[in-house]
Amino acid sequence: MDFAKRDLPKKSKNLSEWYNKVILLAELADYGPAKGTMIYRPYGFAIWELVQKEMDKLIKDKGVKNAYFPLFIPESLLKKEETHVEGFSPELAVVTMGGGEELKEKLIVRPTSETIMYDAYARWIHSWRDLPLAINQWNNVVRWEKRTYLFLRTTEFLWQEGHTAHANHDEAWEMVLWAINMYSKVYRELFALPGYIGRKSEAEKFAGADVTLSYESMMPEGKALQSSTAHDLGQNFSKTFDIKFQNQDSGSEYVWQTCWGFSTRSIGGLIMAHGDDAGLRLPPRLAPIQAVVLPVKPEEKILKAVNEIAGVLKKSGIRAEADVSDNETLGFKINKWELKGVPLRVEIGEKEIKNGSATLVRRDTGEKIVVNIDELTAKSGAVLESIQNNLLEEAERFLKANTRSADNYSAFKKIISGDRGFVSAFWCENAECEKKIKEETKATTRCLPLDLSEENGKCVYCEKPAKHRWLFAQAY
Amino acid sequence: MDFAKRDLPKKSKNLSEWYNKVILLAELADYGPAKGTMIYRPYGFAIWELVQKEMDKLIKDKGVKNAYFPLFIPESLLKKEETHVEGFSPELAVVTMGGGEELKEKLIVRPTSETIMYDAYARWIHSWRDLPLAINQWNNVVRWEKRTYLFLRTTEFLWQEGHTAHANHDEAWEMVLWAINMYSKVYRELFALPGYIGRKSEAEKFAGADVTLSYESMMPEGKALQSSTAHDLGQNFSKTFDIKFQNQDSGSEYVWQTCWGFSTRSIGGLIMAHGDDAGLRLPPRLAPIQAVVLPVKPEEKILKAVNEIAGVLKKSGIRAEADVSDNETLGFKINKWELKGVPLRVEIGEKEIKNGSATLVRRDTGEKIVVNIDELTAKSGAVLESIQNNLLEEAERFLKANTRSADNYSAFKKIISGDRGFVSAFWCENAECEKKIKEETKATTRCLPLDLSEENGKCVYCEKPAKHRWLFAQAY
Repeated sequence: MDFAKRDLPKKSKNLSEWYNKVILLAELADYGPAKGTMIYRPYGFAIWELVQKEMDKLIKDKGVKNAYFPLFIPESLLKKEETHVEGFSPELAVVTMGGGEELKEKLIVRPTSETIMYDAYARWIHSWRDLPLAINQWNNVVRWEKRTYLFLRTTEFLWQEGHTAHANHDEAWEMVLWAINMYSKVYRELFALPGYIGRKSEAEKFAGADVTLSYESMMPEGKALQSSTAHDLGQNFSKTFDIKFQNQDSGSEYVWQTCWGFSTRSIGGLIMAHGDDAGLRLPPRLAPIQAVVLPVKPEEKILKAVNEIAGVLKKSGIRAEADVSDNETLGFKINKWELKGVPLRVEIGEKEIKNGSATLVRRDTGEKIVVNIDELTAKSGAVLESIQNNLLEEAERFLKANTRSADNYSAFKKIISGDRGFVSAFWCENAECEKKIKEETKATTRCLPLDLSEENGKCVYCEKPAKHRWLFAQAY
Repeated sequence: MDFAKRDLPKKSKNLSEWYNKVILLAELADYGPAKGTMIYRPYGFAIWELVQKEMDKLIKDKGVKNAYFPLFIPESLLKKEETHVEGFSPELAVVTMGGGEELKEKLIVRPTSETIMYDAYARWIHSWRDLPLAINQWNNVVRWEKRTYLFLRTTEFLWQEGHTAHANHDEAWEMVLWAINMYSKVYRELFALPGYIGRKSEAEKFAGADVTLSYESMMPEGKALQSSTAHDLGQNFSKTFDIKFQNQDSGSEYVWQTCWGFSTRSIGGLIMAHGDDAGLRLPPRLAPIQAVVLPVKPEEKILKAVNEIAGVLKKSGIRAEADVSDNETLGFKINKWELKGVPLRVEIGEKEIKNGSATLVRRDTGEKIVVNIDELTAKSGAVLESIQNNLLEEAERFLKANTRSADNYSAFKKIISGDRGFVSAFWCENAECEKKIKEETKATTRCLPLDLSEENGKCVYCEKPAKHRWLFAQAY
């Protein structure tokens, strides 16, 4: 345990160094031996398990079924859809040897599973009765990255990928909207992370999609994080992979497809958005340990009470733990659990035992609350709820404060070179302007928020007519 | 849907063809495009999810925590433990290209995770306070196989691998015993599959282990299936990877390690052991659909009742489904659900509606039971319980009938060339005899059952003194 060193840089001083250090010190993750890979340590993986548990329920309730497709995609299969392979080819890891022999055909380690799944969909789908076909998988994917960053960009990462096929476009589009709204719900309600849902530009959309929707959230220092995406694939893949069905009039049609993914990158956003100079601040719904019970002094009577109280909290459904280790001081323990971002600390000393009370300390605000021991579980539950809400409200205020409008390019540049954040600005939807803005400011189009109506404006770059205000930002 | 063809070979006539066909027709799995890979289709994957849900609880209750380690192991790391790499090197898939460039060091797609995990353990373990370190992962592994078989032997498969480090050998051995007994419990209580727990011979043990325990079950036609293993790694890996800890007297010691794994191979055993000429017979606890409700005629009143009854069953906690599709006859549906191995069929027709009853049909025995509609859920639950027990009892009788003793080599050969099954025979534990027996009969040592005491016997092959009766069998 390296907590004693407390060599965590201040988040406010050096975000990037703080980010890496807090992940290592809190034992969320560690570097893997192969370049760009990471180890999800138990404390970090437990967050992902909590996400999986909730999201898996939402996915199944929608009638989508889990399955598992192979890791290895024959090169020829991946190359079938041109736009798709172009998008992914710089990022591929390739198996060329198997069982001691050179392979006749190279195998690609899946960067995503469209091609291998749709090859099977073509075999499985015959008639309208087989539709919708809706399958999800929780798996690992590999994308070779030059510059990596724990959780946010690693060579291998974990995610879910949903892939559906429908008899018509309306149904497919409904699924795309359901997916992005489901992600938004998970981000807001579990991650306490608000964001914008919108459409990606042609240049930024998924390789092979007609339309990509994304959820864009805001990180400290004003950089955006594309937190998840849902794609309307139209009939692009069904035409390439020949996925046809007999419709109810016995005609033959290509299916309409969607896919949507949510990855462990989300945990990077969680860490970055909510942490502070003392370490992580985990929203209670995703905290592997929601409450830690600490003895003020290592006395037998107190240790006994600490264990009992942790037991009572656990029994009430709170993920609680007692820290009765005898080789650390109270101060050390407090620092350690603050760094690990446990939302609620319960301190028990002689005073508490004498008074039949417990002292609760909130990780988010530092507020101390003395409660009667009889109301401990009820009050703890309420405080956890309040912390969850408070973190979301804080993040909402932050998002709002970091979304600014720019009516002309000089205002745009001033924001991007200053506080950054999202800039809402008219854009003519010409790729040339988008490219120039990116070159000159490093800001990219993040999305066109779905709920905006048409207006008459002029492009922030070329000043030609523009109908929509897009969100721009520098991004991870 | 290809059920109409009913081109399922008889299990009793051609086991191997039946096995492949029933998997494809029941939509448990399909072949992947890369040689030796398979797709776990939703119906097959749902079985694995049921196993995971139960086993994950048992693993966590033991204090073992889930984590995730990278897929790619640098070649140099895998080569550190000599015996280990020797055992696995013929089976490796190797990544030589990444991001469009040839890699400086080849990356091995994990065949198992000892080396990559223990490299990290050496960094994480400092003192006795860090022990036991007990981590499990649910992941995919790749072992290049020349001859593959759906579920039983595929190039990529899914499993869990538990890896623990302890301060002394007693604790490690206790963990090995816990693991193999946990697997035995899961096999008996969920899979309805009895087996023998025992120690593997030196020739058959895991590459890098001091002792390997396995669970050996019996398949039709008398071939054994090694269903799971737990390994006492001693200090073999801790010495190679330099995993030391400060003990309570401030001395430095190497940790004692264990690992244990349970894979989707188990589902192959499930299919093979319980299926019959009509298709799968799934034990209720692992059946994705425990009860299917069928309308005897496609009349509105009946369809309505069928949907209601499925709803009532679901509400009571039974995984039930109504099959009200209008393009299949009752006979077709019965065949389909029998093939898919659904344990309980509920038939509803005019007679049932008039009498306020439901007709239950057991998949295991074919027995019909008419029950009053008020007792439907209670009776269904009881019948499912009875089916679970009956399948286990059948399999226990089969195991017993297929375990025979041989006091000399001619009796041994007679059994192996006849009904096969397990042969219990004295063996001197000399590798030469084991090798000769394998060459001459294709039977290998399966295990030395843990509960056997020493005897004075003579080796079934060389007739020299032998202390134990080992189990031999031909195996998958």
